[in-house]
Amino acid sequence: MQALVVLAPFLGLLGLYAAYALYVEIMKQSPGNDRMQEIAEMIHTGAMTFLKREYTILAGFVGIVFLLLAIFISFLTSVAFVAGAICSMAAGAIGMQGATQANVRTSEAARDKGEEAALYIAYGGGSIMGLSVASLGLIGVASFYILYVMIGDNTFVQHLAGFAMGASSIALFARVGGGIYTKSADVGSDLVGKIEAGIPEDDPRNPGVIADNVGDCVGDTAGLGADIFESYVGSVIATIAIGATMTQASSHMILPILVIMIGLVASVIGIASMTKMKGIDPAEILRYTTFIAAGLMLFFSLVATFMVGLGFAVWGALAMGCLAGIAIGLLTEYYTGMFGPVKKLAASAETGAATLIINGFALALQSVAPPVAVIALATFCANSMAGLYGIGLAAVGMLATVGITMSVDAYGPIADNAGGISEMAGLGPETRKITDGLDAIGNTTAAIGKGFAIGSAAMTALALFSAYINAVGLTSINIINTQVIIGLFMGGAITFVIASMTMTSVGNAAMQMVEEIRRQFREIPGLMEGTGKPDPATCVDIATKAALKEMILPGATAAVFPLLIGLLLGPEGLGGMLAGATVTGVMLALLMANGGGAWDNAKKYIEQGHHGGKGSEAHKAAVIGDTVGDPFKDTSGPAMNILIKLMSIISLVIAPLLI
Amino acid sequence: MQALVVLAPFLGLLGLYAAYALYVEIMKQSPGNDRMQEIAEMIHTGAMTFLKREYTILAGFVGIVFLLLAIFISFLTSVAFVAGAICSMAAGAIGMQGATQANVRTSEAARDKGEEAALYIAYGGGSIMGLSVASLGLIGVASFYILYVMIGDNTFVQHLAGFAMGASSIALFARVGGGIYTKSADVGSDLVGKIEAGIPEDDPRNPGVIADNVGDCVGDTAGLGADIFESYVGSVIATIAIGATMTQASSHMILPILVIMIGLVASVIGIASMTKMKGIDPAEILRYTTFIAAGLMLFFSLVATFMVGLGFAVWGALAMGCLAGIAIGLLTEYYTGMFGPVKKLAASAETGAATLIINGFALALQSVAPPVAVIALATFCANSMAGLYGIGLAAVGMLATVGITMSVDAYGPIADNAGGISEMAGLGPETRKITDGLDAIGNTTAAIGKGFAIGSAAMTALALFSAYINAVGLTSINIINTQVIIGLFMGGAITFVIASMTMTSVGNAAMQMVEEIRRQFREIPGLMEGTGKPDPATCVDIATKAALKEMILPGATAAVFPLLIGLLLGPEGLGGMLAGATVTGVMLALLMANGGGAWDNAKKYIEQGHHGGKGSEAHKAAVIGDTVGDPFKDTSGPAMNILIKLMSIISLVIAPLLI
Repeated sequence: MQALVVLAPFLGLLGLYAAYALYVEIMKQSPGNDRMQEIAEMIHTGAMTFLKREYTILAGFVGIVFLLLAIFISFLTSVAFVAGAICSMAAGAIGMQGATQANVRTSEAARDKGEEAALYIAYGGGSIMGLSVASLGLIGVASFYILYVMIGDNTFVQHLAGFAMGASSIALFARVGGGIYTKSADVGSDLVGKIEAGIPEDDPRNPGVIADNVGDCVGDTAGLGADIFESYVGSVIATIAIGATMTQASSHMILPILVIMIGLVASVIGIASMTKMKGIDPAEILRYTTFIAAGLMLFFSLVATFMVGLGFAVWGALAMGCLAGIAIGLLTEYYTGMFGPVKKLAASAETGAATLIINGFALALQSVAPPVAVIALATFCANSMAGLYGIGLAAVGMLATVGITMSVDAYGPIADNAGGISEMAGLGPETRKITDGLDAIGNTTAAIGKGFAIGSAAMTALALFSAYINAVGLTSINIINTQVIIGLFMGGAITFVIASMTMTSVGNAAMQMVEEIRRQFREIPGLMEGTGKPDPATCVDIATKAALKEMILPGATAAVFPLLIGLLLGPEGLGGMLAGATVTGVMLALLMANGGGAWDNAKKYIEQGHHGGKGSEAHKAAVIGDTVGDPFKDTSGPAMNILIKLMSIISLVIAPLLI
Repeated sequence: MQALVVLAPFLGLLGLYAAYALYVEIMKQSPGNDRMQEIAEMIHTGAMTFLKREYTILAGFVGIVFLLLAIFISFLTSVAFVAGAICSMAAGAIGMQGATQANVRTSEAARDKGEEAALYIAYGGGSIMGLSVASLGLIGVASFYILYVMIGDNTFVQHLAGFAMGASSIALFARVGGGIYTKSADVGSDLVGKIEAGIPEDDPRNPGVIADNVGDCVGDTAGLGADIFESYVGSVIATIAIGATMTQASSHMILPILVIMIGLVASVIGIASMTKMKGIDPAEILRYTTFIAAGLMLFFSLVATFMVGLGFAVWGALAMGCLAGIAIGLLTEYYTGMFGPVKKLAASAETGAATLIINGFALALQSVAPPVAVIALATFCANSMAGLYGIGLAAVGMLATVGITMSVDAYGPIADNAGGISEMAGLGPETRKITDGLDAIGNTTAAIGKGFAIGSAAMTALALFSAYINAVGLTSINIINTQVIIGLFMGGAITFVIASMTMTSVGNAAMQMVEEIRRQFREIPGLMEGTGKPDPATCVDIATKAALKEMILPGATAAVFPLLIGLLLGPEGLGGMLAGATVTGVMLALLMANGGGAWDNAKKYIEQGHHGGKGSEAHKAAVIGDTVGDPFKDTSGPAMNILIKLMSIISLVIAPLLI
């Protein structure tokens, strides 16, 4: 069976080839008229410039950490670290390239050919990201696994953790930077455009709209991609690390790799299956392809589990994670979609912004409990079935079909962009109706994707936590010990501090954006009347600089904190810190994602004509709620996912220093 | 030394006598003109009616729990439970009686005699509450201690915990009920009065203002009093429980009782010392009296510690708690007072409500870390000095001078009420200026009091947690065990759920209040012009009914949850739940108290004329921020304090069922 793992990197290359084939296919489609191409080019350039500058900064960071790891931990760990960072960056760059070519072609397909063709292109563009994440993750983890097994170093699992740490470090900066970028542009454009100037969303007169569309790419595509990539490799590596300490170690270690190999193939089949679905509602298509992939993955994983000589219970833990992922997605949809809670929330906008915010916050607080109960239940079942290893495998089960879940997630910002391009290029109401429809589905998949990202982060963090405990050789992290209690409190506090930092960053960056957009409306003659031309490049530049500047402090804090706590409180205290951070981090992530999602859709519900519709007092209140929710759901909330994983993985890597 | 404890109940009776003497003194002062007396009588009746109806409902609850405890735990525990409940209710009733007589006499003194006389009366009224809490707590704890020692039952500490549970149960309902009452009245009156009708705060034409003033009494006086009473007895009983398991058990058990005896005497001296301070700024007077009491308490506690044969390190733990209490109060003042953070927050109101809310939330998130670090540091030091016992004693040290800290807290709503009465009775700008000044000091002391309440709740919860661990005979609560991880998550989730419930309750109750006030403005002829008379009694009735109805669900949930978790996850899992709830509860309490306080003062800062002053767009945004903050700081936030203590104490009481 061990031999099968050798195939993994080649399977990964095949996956990358599939992504490339999709890209070629998309590039064959028409990119529309000159105006569309001009807009798309601005978005493309803005996104790629941001990525390039971000990666330049991160290269420095990666270099420094490489040296530190090589000196204080081990050279093998530091090599894996760099590889993990490069794979994460590569996945982001490939996905972004695909997304920024697919967006304009989706618009054109919507104009020229109709909904189905547009859906295919948007989904295909998302799949480039999905397949890249899955394939690069598989190639990286499997290659280093094979390499280290060949070297025969007994502590190779420790080195492997370096790969996850590389992915994790990039993820934090990408998520935080992307989150700040997208929300500063969004909030800034909305505050001046919608509220002050009274022009609609994505209006070409607004100098901030290009930055806003770039933000969708860098935040929701590259940022989310890095987040999910990290969960994916983190869960697999944590499970390998736990498996390494068990009897039948080699079976336990290769199973997670086999599962993600199966998951990649299942994802490709799932993506391909969409071309066979004709005349079905687009939202259903996205759902069905996901279910097909999950079903295939579960079935063949059962076969693989038996083949490596592990029992049904081990597979049960895997299945538990897969089901929990789906359940958390559905719960997120319930709380943030157009159902009871959001409709009730929208009604409270009638008495003003204050009651809307209070009720939205109450809804968000409440929405935390059911997903947490699902995570707790899945953890309990997985542990009963297969111990700590089961918890790790549950996380792998949740993430194995990442090729398709990530595709669906990445579809969202492409559809969103396509809508923006249609509006800016004035493609007319027929086209706009199609892109609006695709965008609405994208909002739902984005909400589900957020819930899924949180659930998988929680499970991955628990798996990494278990691996950390093994690595430092603890048999107990006893809450009765004061350093553990203090660790719990410190872990709780750090999540609040990082959430505060990222939220403040959005505020600062948005203020700069507001100033610039106001300046352009004031100084460019005829801009409001449509005779003057806005200068979107300056806005893009401001968002880029602000995001890159503001991502440093929270990123560095998160990276240094576990080391500090480990040195101050010892390995047991650090374990307490990780537990405290995981609990509060998951809560805050759910609170912010669901609160932000609910306010967003409450506004959309009012815009559909309820409670007075657009322009009413209720709508004005809803716009305030939506703006408050923006940094919640797209910056600070997502940062929590990565924070808890990053701190766990850093703890795992520095474990040798603490023993 | 043991003999000294026998004096404790008598000392408590002396403290009650001092409260009575203060009451007689206050009643001798003039209650002002007919209009003032009429208003004061409405507030008094409203407050007392609420208390009576609340206590009637709670009597039923106490009766049921009494039976359950007698059947499943022990008769002695159930007797102590009832006594704890009665003492808490008595302290609330006495304090409320004092506050609702002192308020109008403070107005009259401000009108007739000036600031100093008004300050004395308001502070004297607050001291009635302060001395009642300290005295009744001392009487109750010491009497049951003596009784149970006389009986010679080895498990008497277990029974003693019943007293704290009684106090705790009342506290939760009083805090939640009072919090819902005060904020539904406040939010309802403001939404219709200030925003819709455009009339000032406390305007006699607003039918909701009496209910608003009643709310200040039932929320800030009775609610806070029950909260602090619970921390006070909880910390002492937890410390006795830990002491009982140590060598030199009797010394360790009587020390906390001796400390609160000293604390009561020190508080009386502190209160008396204010009459000697002439020509000093009122805010300074409040501060000095507190410091005098704390200094005396620390000095004589050192003597007591040596007398019972315990070392300097034990006293060090006590002092650590006392200092931590002061530090947390000062940190709260920094984040919510008129300093840098609030001024910066006020500036963000210029770009509208959305940025104000985002920045306020970021500030609140950030403000969590420093107090948590203080709690962690105090816990660490106290534990290094005297182990778990040290943690308990630190909590006692923080609360020993409750006689005076509670007096200062209870001063706030009296000054607030005095301002309301002056406005409603039209006493003119001179009087109003004095009462406004006293009210502003009250806002600061209220903010400090909230920080102090959270800090003491955290320390008390940790002490109770330690006592629980002893009671169930655990030597380890190991986070590596799945049931402990699940417990941590469940504990984290329950605080979010209770916060959501209480916030929703305020929303519901405020809506009813808005409807009623709108109805009166619509249906009563000449109300707006000042010729018609409002019907405040209906508003009072609505707030009363809504608060009593809405307090049941969160109260019952909190009471049942530990039992449920204990039965499902066992004693270790329950320990994990308590740890998770304590960490997230403290975070949420700080977040909400500081966020609410900062928004409140940002509004006041703008009203002082900054950023356009009253009536500007910035002011409108600030009013929205303040309204959002109302349930944060006065309902859901404070509920967290009691929740974590209540769940710990219930766990301690049901410990015999779980072993």
